[in-house]
Amino acid sequence: MERIRLGMVGGGNDAFIGGVHRIASRIDDKYELVAGALSSTPEKSVASGEALGLKRVYEDFKTMAIREARRKDGIEAVAIVTPNHVHFQAAREFLKRDIHVICDKPLTSTLQDAKKLVKVAEESDGLFILTHNYTGYPMVRHAKAMVDAGEIGRVRVVQVEYPQDWLTVDQDIKQARWRTDPARSGAGGSVGDIGTHAFNLACFITGLEVESLAADLQAFVSGRELDDNAHVMLRFEGGARGMLWSSQVAPGNENALRIRVYGETGGLEWAQEDPNYLWHSPFGEPKRLITRGGAGSGEAAARLTRIPPGHPEGYLEGFANIYSEAAEAIIAARDSRNPHHDVRYPTVHDGLKGVQFISACVKSSARNAAWVKLDH
Amino acid sequence: MERIRLGMVGGGNDAFIGGVHRIASRIDDKYELVAGALSSTPEKSVASGEALGLKRVYEDFKTMAIREARRKDGIEAVAIVTPNHVHFQAAREFLKRDIHVICDKPLTSTLQDAKKLVKVAEESDGLFILTHNYTGYPMVRHAKAMVDAGEIGRVRVVQVEYPQDWLTVDQDIKQARWRTDPARSGAGGSVGDIGTHAFNLACFITGLEVESLAADLQAFVSGRELDDNAHVMLRFEGGARGMLWSSQVAPGNENALRIRVYGETGGLEWAQEDPNYLWHSPFGEPKRLITRGGAGSGEAAARLTRIPPGHPEGYLEGFANIYSEAAEAIIAARDSRNPHHDVRYPTVHDGLKGVQFISACVKSSARNAAWVKLDH
Amino acid sequence: MERIRLGMVGGGNDAFIGGVHRIASRIDDKYELVAGALSSTPEKSVASGEALGLKRVYEDFKTMAIREARRKDGIEAVAIVTPNHVHFQAAREFLKRDIHVICDKPLTSTLQDAKKLVKVAEESDGLFILTHNYTGYPMVRHAKAMVDAGEIGRVRVVQVEYPQDWLTVDQDIKQARWRTDPARSGAGGSVGDIGTHAFNLACFITGLEVESLAADLQAFVSGRELDDNAHVMLRFEGGARGMLWSSQVAPGNENALRIRVYGETGGLEWAQEDPNYLWHSPFGEPKRLITRGGAGSGEAAARLTRIPPGHPEGYLEGFANIYSEAAEAIIAARDSRNPHHDVRYPTVHDGLKGVQFISACVKSSARNAAWVKLDH
Amino acid sequence: MERIRLGMVGGGNDAFIGGVHRIASRIDDKYELVAGALSSTPEKSVASGEALGLKRVYEDFKTMAIREARRKDGIEAVAIVTPNHVHFQAAREFLKRDIHVICDKPLTSTLQDAKKLVKVAEESDGLFILTHNYTGYPMVRHAKAMVDAGEIGRVRVVQVEYPQDWLTVDQDIKQARWRTDPARSGAGGSVGDIGTHAFNLACFITGLEVESLAADLQAFVSGRELDDNAHVMLRFEGGARGMLWSSQVAPGNENALRIRVYGETGGLEWAQEDPNYLWHSPFGEPKRLITRGGAGSGEAAARLTRIPPGHPEGYLEGFANIYSEAAEAIIAARDSRNPHHDVRYPTVHDGLKGVQFISACVKSSARNAAWVKLDH
Repeated sequence: MERIRLGMVGGGNDAFIGGVHRIASRIDDKYELVAGALSSTPEKSVASGEALGLKRVYEDFKTMAIREARRKDGIEAVAIVTPNHVHFQAAREFLKRDIHVICDKPLTSTLQDAKKLVKVAEESDGLFILTHNYTGYPMVRHAKAMVDAGEIGRVRVVQVEYPQDWLTVDQDIKQARWRTDPARSGAGGSVGDIGTHAFNLACFITGLEVESLAADLQAFVSGRELDDNAHVMLRFEGGARGMLWSSQVAPGNENALRIRVYGETGGLEWAQEDPNYLWHSPFGEPKRLITRGGAGSGEAAARLTRIPPGHPEGYLEGFANIYSEAAEAIIAARDSRNPHHDVRYPTVHDGLKGVQFISACVKSSARNAAWVKLDH
Repeated sequence: MERIRLGMVGGGNDAFIGGVHRIASRIDDKYELVAGALSSTPEKSVASGEALGLKRVYEDFKTMAIREARRKDGIEAVAIVTPNHVHFQAAREFLKRDIHVICDKPLTSTLQDAKKLVKVAEESDGLFILTHNYTGYPMVRHAKAMVDAGEIGRVRVVQVEYPQDWLTVDQDIKQARWRTDPARSGAGGSVGDIGTHAFNLACFITGLEVESLAADLQAFVSGRELDDNAHVMLRFEGGARGMLWSSQVAPGNENALRIRVYGETGGLEWAQEDPNYLWHSPFGEPKRLITRGGAGSGEAAARLTRIPPGHPEGYLEGFANIYSEAAEAIIAARDSRNPHHDVRYPTVHDGLKGVQFISACVKSSARNAAWVKLDH
Repeated sequence: MERIRLGMVGGGNDAFIGGVHRIASRIDDKYELVAGALSSTPEKSVASGEALGLKRVYEDFKTMAIREARRKDGIEAVAIVTPNHVHFQAAREFLKRDIHVICDKPLTSTLQDAKKLVKVAEESDGLFILTHNYTGYPMVRHAKAMVDAGEIGRVRVVQVEYPQDWLTVDQDIKQARWRTDPARSGAGGSVGDIGTHAFNLACFITGLEVESLAADLQAFVSGRELDDNAHVMLRFEGGARGMLWSSQVAPGNENALRIRVYGETGGLEWAQEDPNYLWHSPFGEPKRLITRGGAGSGEAAARLTRIPPGHPEGYLEGFANIYSEAAEAIIAARDSRNPHHDVRYPTVHDGLKGVQFISACVKSSARNAAWVKLDH
Repeated sequence: MERIRLGMVGGGNDAFIGGVHRIASRIDDKYELVAGALSSTPEKSVASGEALGLKRVYEDFKTMAIREARRKDGIEAVAIVTPNHVHFQAAREFLKRDIHVICDKPLTSTLQDAKKLVKVAEESDGLFILTHNYTGYPMVRHAKAMVDAGEIGRVRVVQVEYPQDWLTVDQDIKQARWRTDPARSGAGGSVGDIGTHAFNLACFITGLEVESLAADLQAFVSGRELDDNAHVMLRFEGGARGMLWSSQVAPGNENALRIRVYGETGGLEWAQEDPNYLWHSPFGEPKRLITRGGAGSGEAAARLTRIPPGHPEGYLEGFANIYSEAAEAIIAARDSRNPHHDVRYPTVHDGLKGVQFISACVKSSARNAAWVKLDH
């Protein structure tokens, strides 16, 4: 199988998530990174691309889209790993030319852009994959499979949270600057950067849509324009209820994404920092600790597992799973067929929901935590 | 020191919490249980009292209050461990006669009763101690002491929860029947039975009052009249915010009361099921696990500790601490002096706040989770 | 039921374990402490007894044994909580007079004394109960019941350890002085003080006898005469093998007694510092976390449980369980009948085995860790 | 930087560890796998190589060594991932031709071969890297750095264990067959397959050599020729002592490698299944939980870390770290310079020690656990 020719937008020398995407693309050996426009500053873009030994380096993403589209050996897919406000324009350039897009979350920095991007994606022959990477963890897949199979009964309650602590004080570093800047990040602070992950994870595992929410957002650090802590109550279709907490000012929390789902006959609990474990609590029986690849861990997890139980897989492998799911879809597209029905990745529609979530949180909080519908 | 002569109202043969109070009163050898009216059914009351070998057994609490008040060797204090709706009338009978009252929570089944009881207590020479027993755990005391000493800075965020799972299905047992019956339990289900504990704990540790809350209550089990799951957003005086979750339908949770408090310079985390540990996360330093009686555990915990670190104390010892704090206050009252300023126990005013909390939750939820002030 | 009249030898003002025994005796209200000889120094003995409000205070244990034995309302049982070297003589005085003895471990400070005490006990009408208190924890009982019922199959491997850290440096405090003094403690240091607990626990849960052992003892702290760290390999009857580690120089360990038992079809794991949990790993299935009183916790645990699951019981309750088991046996003896067959407590024979264990460890280590039989 | 041209011996379709090496070599993009002799069966070797899309596929490793050595673009390094008994011959062929060797552990299946291989390696210009991969975990590096810096004082006690459960019953699968066959595995069963990892880890972190050991090996499963459980007491140079347990019959353990090191002023604890955490217990202070990349995690860990704290790295990243350390050394060798002094990987000498460890365990056990020197 020929490796997928990949380009990258963003992800220059001093970025964080670009490196993650590159490793994720390599782990299963299904991609080859050949081209890039790695920075919004042309010189940086070129320097970063050369440092990585890319075959083709561009000064900006539009030039890259145009030229790559013309080449026989041009990129088949592009990873977009810029700050949020660039996602829309970059994605559009590639989708217009039917180049598949693998894009970091949240989808866009505005709801308007998100809606437009959905249209662009629908009209393109290119696939659109959003890297809500936490859905790539095998035990998250297993949790979803258990809920789908009715193993905890009809879902009643969802508790999901994503606390961090790195913005407990004002941080004057690149990663912090754009994430706390409405112009680049969008209307959501913690709620956009990590709350969307929590939201997406809750929907992914339960298979439920959120109908409405009531949010109380705070910016605790003086001078901060965007929320750094968010309390959200959720109402799911069909009657389930939930709470969502995102925070960047909770000392002692690194990336403590955690979800608990309670149904009529059982509960599930998973934590991102210890991702190889899934707690299952069938009502009236002892709790069980299911391990990735171990007894009790089924096919949905096994598909996305490389090594035996007890040898932990981590964040990069989970991220790689999204890339590998995308690869299966891309290769199926090469062959003009549908990918296997087990293949799953977050789509542009999931991305739109995420931006609707951010927007609803901001709107609700502005209305003193009144309930706001997600598709407002 | 002569042991305090204690009576008990409620706590007959098939009750749960009465036995807990009796053990708690014995652990530090400061009480002697001598009289009781242990059931609302006179025959049961007498039978239960005799089974316990009590010196004086009464058919009802009013008779007990009258007769004991007349005796030279009458009870000095009474433990009230009945279902909620009896608290007010029973407490009043003893307080009127200046007999100290140790009463289970919540204070009363209605807000009206709670307010009346405050007055009765204020006019009595009897002390009123409410057994929010979780505040008796040594590491809870240490957490409070750390917050008071500014060790985590100004509090910003509180996450508190008390999930259980025993009402996941309809339970036709005595403990369940009265707790799910508005006439005996009051307007709150989970929010009254365990939410009040969570609420009280949050206020105790942070030293902050809740100003208003927005609550979304659910009764998931068909036919249940009171909430069995509650999502609550909190606004504290001075700007701190919180979330509170209580549930009796969360499979895998026994008595999973847990609190996390985040301030400007650090975080604290404590869980009732593992009560000898307190996590302290000073921002920018590794997390520390403080153990009861171990290095880092200070005077506030040591006051209420009996055995060395690594030998766990549990629920009964925490409960006993409330009894022992009460004993110090009662003995001080004997001697017409104030107890040592370290002595702390939940008062009738804390009890009123708990009932206000329940009332506000119910009112807010009826108003679609609108914000309701606590002293509405 | 009339409470058992109890006396105490040792346990004066500055002792630790005496207070534990007193609380343990009170928790289930089956004992009343009425007499004591609480110190080897007569004045201290009297002062300590008066401080506790004992009815009868003696200057020494022999006088107490003689006088109490003559009284109609004399003590029925005595708790011996002195340093090890006093156990034998004190126990003998009471057993000779058919007063039941509840004695702290290890049984004696020498193997010779241990053997003599077995004889004395066998000839007495008094019962002898050794407070290997860890066997009183409900989940230890449940573990034993599971092994007995064959739920993990034939036992192959036992890993047991009891590390502490308090003697990491030289400690000039009373508790340390006698424990590191061969004249008062016996030939074993860590191996006697805590290794015996580990050894007893392994035998209790597995129901197996140790046939021989190979031990490598160390005294790491300069000038220390007794071992402060011990590595022991065990061979059980029937072919099971084990490792035992005791240490008082392992920083970060408070009372970290932990046991893991592996059989042909499953494994069990229990840790003293978190005693309400028992891990059960049936081979080929997910691990299960059994909680005290929760689903999966059976009758053996329920017998010794006071409160519902999720409300932790601790060290004092486990200790109290030994007292309550003893009480059942003592009350049965009052009535000249056998106690119920479920009643279990460590006997003088278990005590002898513990002293044999110490002796074998010391002898093996002196022979460069050669294998030594337990009944050498 | 040009990627290192890599070959592979072993690791065909149905092998486990070959895939791990391939991913590990890709993660940091420093290698390109170009040639292979992936099976001892020529047809399988060719089929497996083609399935992987290798440029050059050979029927056997000797042919590969000869031909690759002649090519200008021949492999610079070879990964040897066969069963143990092939390591020696394969490694020799490549080392003779100055091709660097990255070899799985244990070094060889016999002590004789191990000693010969040391000589071969010493005479070669090729480097020899043994994949004791657990030393590649960042928090293992941090633990070593802490010990080296004296942060826990002089080491006294080491507790190390590596239990698994997959051989609890007789397994007729390829992975089990060769591991339980003395002809292919060597004289050690669990002690060779995983005990060597535990041994290596203990030496790596403490920086100490084991002088002698006493071992009690068992084969619990009927008909098994090699040990499936091993109890070992260790004596380190300078007076430290340790215990080592390896097992493949401990239900509930997947790859539960765990080490605890206690020094005069503190303790450390690390577990392979949760590798992003390191517990540090400074004596007399609360325990600290150091996280990979978090506060308290220093340079030694940071060198080998790709992503921020709270995003777990796992087994593959730890393995990749060994590959990347090797790459630094190989690239330095290209340039005829020494690698940076921080670069560390297990050498052929570490491999010899591992085989000496196995040999000493077997010999000691045969002598009823007599002490055997490591360099016997």
